[in-house]
Amino acid sequence: MTDVGGIAGDRLRSFIERIERLEEEKAALAADIREVYSEAKGTGFDVKILRQIVRLRKMDVSERQEQEDLLDVYKRALGM
Amino acid sequence: MTDVGGIAGDRLRSFIERIERLEEEKAALAADIREVYSEAKGTGFDVKILRQIVRLRKMDVSERQEQEDLLDVYKRALGM
Amino acid sequence: MTDVGGIAGDRLRSFIERIERLEEEKAALAADIREVYSEAKGTGFDVKILRQIVRLRKMDVSERQEQEDLLDVYKRALGM
Amino acid sequence: MTDVGGIAGDRLRSFIERIERLEEEKAALAADIREVYSEAKGTGFDVKILRQIVRLRKMDVSERQEQEDLLDVYKRALGM
Repeated sequence: MTDVGGIAGDRLRSFIERIERLEEEKAALAADIREVYSEAKGTGFDVKILRQIVRLRKMDVSERQEQEDLLDVYKRALGM
Repeated sequence: MTDVGGIAGDRLRSFIERIERLEEEKAALAADIREVYSEAKGTGFDVKILRQIVRLRKMDVSERQEQEDLLDVYKRALGM
Repeated sequence: MTDVGGIAGDRLRSFIERIERLEEEKAALAADIREVYSEAKGTGFDVKILRQIVRLRKMDVSERQEQEDLLDVYKRALGM
Repeated sequence: MTDVGGIAGDRLRSFIERIERLEEEKAALAADIREVYSEAKGTGFDVKILRQIVRLRKMDVSERQEQEDLLDVYKRALGM
């Protein structure tokens, strides 16, 4: 193990390489996700709306309902 | 003042319109900034490096020096 | 005007300072916007919903209506 | 297969569920990455500098060298 400026080179390298491997896997998954959206688009689905659906399904049902109701109240108050 | 669902429409509208005006001004400034970068690029400057300079100048001198020194130590420890 | 490494220092400084001034004004506006949201929250408005309203008002009416209708179709198809 | 508003519910559900599974795996990897940084921090490494190292190692060596040289030129031109 070589130390440069008090830094354990091997430990540093090990951390960096672990991060890089995980980042690569994460980037591959991000590419997979883009591909599913693209495949869905090719079948005629609207990607923007799909993203909204994914976001809405992350919320619990009562929280989502509450937000939708409040949004409606605000929209009516503004005459939208 | 009309109330819809307990919401004071006029107050709501006033908040929304204030935000929209500020957002517009902010968007105009963002466009101005892009234009200065673009003008600098037209004169031969490298935009990516200009952005780094702007970021570095936000830090105080000793903090910046410390970070640069530490980065050098890590790079040497990794043989970069 | 001093040139370092073929770089016109004065021109560089002038570009950087213009960018910094614009960035400062932009940051001030961002702070103003946060403050209006915070004031609205203090009056009882829901900040998350306000942000949705601001986003929806940026779209033109027919585009917004179309998106809302499509979202409803997808939600019903999923039994949401 | 149920169709609602001309939408094939089963296909829609299948796309959404594939995306959700991939998003979950991606979120788990993001948590793993944060954990490695946190472990490195616990060993005494500076997370901000580690992130810079990871970013720099993504670039090819000559490109990185070129950027560092140019940054030095600009800094000297500004007396930094």
